[in-house]
Amino acid sequence: MSILAPQRPAGRPHGPASIGWIGIIGMIALIGMIGMIGGMAGAVPAAAQGARIGAPPAGPPPEGNMPPPTAQMLADEIQETAVSLRDAALKGTKAWSLLSSLTTEVGPRPAGSPGDRLAVAWAVRTLEELGFSNVHTEKVTVSHWVRGEEAGEIVAPYPQRLALAAVGGSVGTPAAGIEAAVVEVAGLDALDHLDAAKVKGKIVFFNTPTDRTRDGTGYAKAVPVRTQGPSRAAKFGAVAVVLRSIGTDSNRLPHTGGLRYEQGLPRIPAAALSAPDADLLAAELAGGKPVRLRVRLGARTLAPAESANVIGEIPGREKPEEIVLLGAHLDSWDLGTGAIDDGAGCAIVVETARRIAELKARPRRTLRVVLFANEELGLSGAEAYAKAHARELPRHVLALESDLGSGRVWRLESRVAIESMGWIRELDRLVFPIGAGSGTNQGDSGPDLGPLASAGVPTVSLMQDATGYFDFHHTANDTLDKANARDLDYNVAAWSAVVYAAAELPGDFGRIKPPPPQH
Amino acid sequence: MSILAPQRPAGRPHGPASIGWIGIIGMIALIGMIGMIGGMAGAVPAAAQGARIGAPPAGPPPEGNMPPPTAQMLADEIQETAVSLRDAALKGTKAWSLLSSLTTEVGPRPAGSPGDRLAVAWAVRTLEELGFSNVHTEKVTVSHWVRGEEAGEIVAPYPQRLALAAVGGSVGTPAAGIEAAVVEVAGLDALDHLDAAKVKGKIVFFNTPTDRTRDGTGYAKAVPVRTQGPSRAAKFGAVAVVLRSIGTDSNRLPHTGGLRYEQGLPRIPAAALSAPDADLLAAELAGGKPVRLRVRLGARTLAPAESANVIGEIPGREKPEEIVLLGAHLDSWDLGTGAIDDGAGCAIVVETARRIAELKARPRRTLRVVLFANEELGLSGAEAYAKAHARELPRHVLALESDLGSGRVWRLESRVAIESMGWIRELDRLVFPIGAGSGTNQGDSGPDLGPLASAGVPTVSLMQDATGYFDFHHTANDTLDKANARDLDYNVAAWSAVVYAAAELPGDFGRIKPPPPQH
Repeated sequence: MSILAPQRPAGRPHGPASIGWIGIIGMIALIGMIGMIGGMAGAVPAAAQGARIGAPPAGPPPEGNMPPPTAQMLADEIQETAVSLRDAALKGTKAWSLLSSLTTEVGPRPAGSPGDRLAVAWAVRTLEELGFSNVHTEKVTVSHWVRGEEAGEIVAPYPQRLALAAVGGSVGTPAAGIEAAVVEVAGLDALDHLDAAKVKGKIVFFNTPTDRTRDGTGYAKAVPVRTQGPSRAAKFGAVAVVLRSIGTDSNRLPHTGGLRYEQGLPRIPAAALSAPDADLLAAELAGGKPVRLRVRLGARTLAPAESANVIGEIPGREKPEEIVLLGAHLDSWDLGTGAIDDGAGCAIVVETARRIAELKARPRRTLRVVLFANEELGLSGAEAYAKAHARELPRHVLALESDLGSGRVWRLESRVAIESMGWIRELDRLVFPIGAGSGTNQGDSGPDLGPLASAGVPTVSLMQDATGYFDFHHTANDTLDKANARDLDYNVAAWSAVVYAAAELPGDFGRIKPPPPQH
Repeated sequence: MSILAPQRPAGRPHGPASIGWIGIIGMIALIGMIGMIGGMAGAVPAAAQGARIGAPPAGPPPEGNMPPPTAQMLADEIQETAVSLRDAALKGTKAWSLLSSLTTEVGPRPAGSPGDRLAVAWAVRTLEELGFSNVHTEKVTVSHWVRGEEAGEIVAPYPQRLALAAVGGSVGTPAAGIEAAVVEVAGLDALDHLDAAKVKGKIVFFNTPTDRTRDGTGYAKAVPVRTQGPSRAAKFGAVAVVLRSIGTDSNRLPHTGGLRYEQGLPRIPAAALSAPDADLLAAELAGGKPVRLRVRLGARTLAPAESANVIGEIPGREKPEEIVLLGAHLDSWDLGTGAIDDGAGCAIVVETARRIAELKARPRRTLRVVLFANEELGLSGAEAYAKAHARELPRHVLALESDLGSGRVWRLESRVAIESMGWIRELDRLVFPIGAGSGTNQGDSGPDLGPLASAGVPTVSLMQDATGYFDFHHTANDTLDKANARDLDYNVAAWSAVVYAAAELPGDFGRIKPPPPQH
C-alpha cells in the first residue's frame, strides 16, 4: 500500500473540485501535518480564503470519521482527468439509451426465467458492442420461483377484490385458495405480544407503514415484516400472511420482494397488498365485524436453474491484475421491466466504464464490470462471484455497486482501511460539486458486494437519493419512465470521476476487517 | 321571476364575503344603478375602501359576462346564513365518512352489477338514516357490460406483457385473442390521413397524450380517441384498437371509460394501455422492426339490467314545489372503488343537504338530492330522471352536479337566464373567500344534468380543481386515499352556501334557451 503524496505546488487553486469544504479540511489537515501552518496563509487554495482557518468550516460537520493526517492527495493530472470525465458526463451520456434497450428488448428478468436468459445474452452483446475486453459469463445456479396466477378478496363483511402479489419465494396456496379470518398487527413486535390462540388458524395482516427517507432507512426498517413475517406468523399457527406493501406510494400496485422461511417452521403463503388495499382491509376490520379473507396464490419454486454473472473489463494500463469492480445486478422482479431495480445500475456502471475506456490513457488498474445474477432472490450471483474469484479478491482494490435507482448521488460512503481515509476525502472532493456530501466509513457495501466485503475488499458507496425509489421498487410500476435520464447522467458523472481516480491513484484502500454484517 | 332587491342599510360591511372584488363590482354596479354615486364614498363596504372606486379592480378582469344592472342582491339574513353554513363546513364535515362508508361497504358499482344494487341499497339506507324526506328509488334500465378476463402482450419483436383494460362497452375478442401487426397513430386526424391499406387487418394504436389542466379540458380534448377511435379505426378495416390511456399519470394502471360504436360499422374490440405500456409499445415500434400484438378481451354486453336513481329531499319551507337539484352519480367503473368518480360527488351533495336541513329554518325551496344511476355507460339515469319528472322540470329552479373528484372549487360557472346574472354574482361572492373565482355563463352543466339543461333548467357548476383528477380517474387507483378529506370539507362549504342561497333567494334563475350542446 503506497501512501506517497503527489507533489502539488503551493498556492495553486484546485479547480472546480476545490470548492468543497471537505477539500478544505483535507488541505488544513495536510498543512498541519507538515508543520508549516505558521507562514502558509498564502498557500491556502483560493477557494478556501473565505474559510476560518483553524476553525470548523461554516457548513455542517462531517458525519464520518475525520481523516487521519496523511499525505493522500490526488496528483493534479488525476484530479483534472477525473473532473473532466465528471463534467463531460454532465453534457449527456448513453446511460438512458442503455436502460431503454434493456427494458424494451428484455423487460422483466427474474432469476431462472426466459427473461433472465435474454438479459444475459443482451449484456454479453452490449458489452462486446461497446468494446469491453474479456467479455464472458460465469455460471450461477439460481433459485427459480414463479408467480403463477394469484387473486385475493375480502369475503366478509363487505366483499371486495384486493390487488395483491405473492412475496418472492412464497409457497402457493391450494388451488381453491385459503380462506380464513384475519387478525391485524402493526408489525413483528405486535405479533409477538399476541396470544397464539388469537392467531392460530388465521391470516395475519401486517399493516406496517414504510417511511419515506432519502437514504432508504425507512425501507430497511420496514422490510423485516416481509422477510421474517411469514415464519414469525407461522410460529403462532397462522395459515397465511398478507402485508401492507413495503413501499412509500399509494398506488394500486403491490410491492413484491423476497422472504426467508425459517427452518423448522411451516412454510405458509405470503402476499403483499397494495397500500390502498391494505387501507381497505383495515377499514373493514375497523368496522368491528369479523373479516374473512380468501387468498389464492399459484406461486411455486421450481428446480434451481442456470444463469450467469456477466463480466466485461477495461484492462489496466500498468497494473492490470489490480481490479476496481463496478457492480450492478442484471436480474429483476417479474412485475415490472426492472428499470430502476436494477437496470439503472447496469446502465450506470457500463456507461461509466465505457467512458473511462475512451480516455487517451486508460487508468493503471483494470475496471471490471460485473452484472450479477439473482440479486433479488438469494444473492447467488454475488456468492458465485466471490467463490470463483476467491484467490483474486486480495487484488480487488475497491468495489462499488449501483443498486438504488436513478436518483442522484448525494453522499459518498466508504468502508475502507482507516489509513486510507485520506484518499476517500479526495474522492469526496470530486463529487462534492455535483451534490454529494461526505459520509461515514461504515457505509453499506451493497447487497452484491457483501461476500467481497466479508473477504476484506474495501468498498465505496455512491449513495443515491432514494426519496422516490420505494414508490416503484418491486412493483409493476418499475418501468423506464420512472428513471430520469438527467439523473442518470449525474450518476455517471459521479461514478466516472470516482472510479477513474480509484483506478489511477498511487495508493490503495487497504483491507477491511472485521467483516461487516452480512447482507 | 322576481327581481326584487332586498333592503340593505348603507355603510354596513358585508362580512367575510365582501372581501372579493366580484362583490365590489356588484356593489359598484348597484350604486351606479340607483344614481347615488356622488356622495356615497362612506357607503362603500369597509373591505373595499382600498379599491380604486370607478376604476377596474386590481385583480384580473372577470372571464364571464358582466352582470347587467339589476337589483339582485341577497338579503343580509340569507347572506349571513350562507356564510355561516360555509364557515361551519370548514370546521369539518361528514363528507369523508360518507365516502369511506360507500367505498368500504360497497366498493365498485358498475351499472347492472351486484355492486350497483348494493350501492342503491346503501344510498337509500344512508339518506334515511340522515333524516332525508321522501327517500325513494326510481327505476332505471341500464346497460350491463362486463369486463371478464383480459390480457395483452407484444408478441414480436420483443415479447412483453402489457397492462391493459378493455374500454367500457367494447366487444370482446375470440377466446384465443386477436393477434395482428400494429400501426401507431397520434390521434384521430392522423388516422384519417393514413392509407386504408396501411390499416386494414391491423391493430390501430392511438398514442395520444392527455394534457394536465385544472379545468379538465386536457381530458375533454383527448377523450374522443377513446369514444370515437374504435369506430374510426374500424372504418379503415382495423381489427382492434389499443390506445394510450386517456389520463395524466404514469402508473401501470390503465384507464377505462366508455366508447360509442358508430352505427353501420364493424364493432371491433378496444382496450386502453397504461401510459408506461404505451411507451413500451411505442419504443418497440420506434426500433423499426414489425411489431405484432395479441389482445384477449373477455368483455361482453349482457341484457339490460335494472338499477335506480336514488332520491331524497329536504322539503322547502314556503315553496316546496320549487326544487333545487343536487346531483351526483352513484355508479362507478369496475376497476377501483369509485372514490373520486363519483363517490366524492355523492358525499358532497348528501352532506350539503344534510347540513342545510339542520338549520333552524330550512330554505324556502325543496332541496332534492339525486344520485343518478349509470352515468358512466350511457347516462340512462339522467335520461330516466328527466323523463319521469318532465312535468316538474319548469319548477326546477336550479340544478347543480358534483362529478369531478374531491378537488376544491376554484370557479363558479353558470348557465342561467341572462337576466339572472345578478344572482350569480351574489353566489360568486359567497365562494370567493374560499378560493373560487367568477366564471362564464356558458358553463358545462355536467353530464347528468344534460337532459335537464336541454329542457331549460338553469345550472350552476362549482368547478373543482381537476389538476390531479385524471391521474386516477377510471383506474383501479380510484380509491378512498385519493380523495382528500379537507378538500371535501371545502367543497361542502362552497356547496352549502350556494345551494342554501339558491333555495332561499327571492328571485330565480329563469329558463335557459336555446338548449346547450348535448353531453
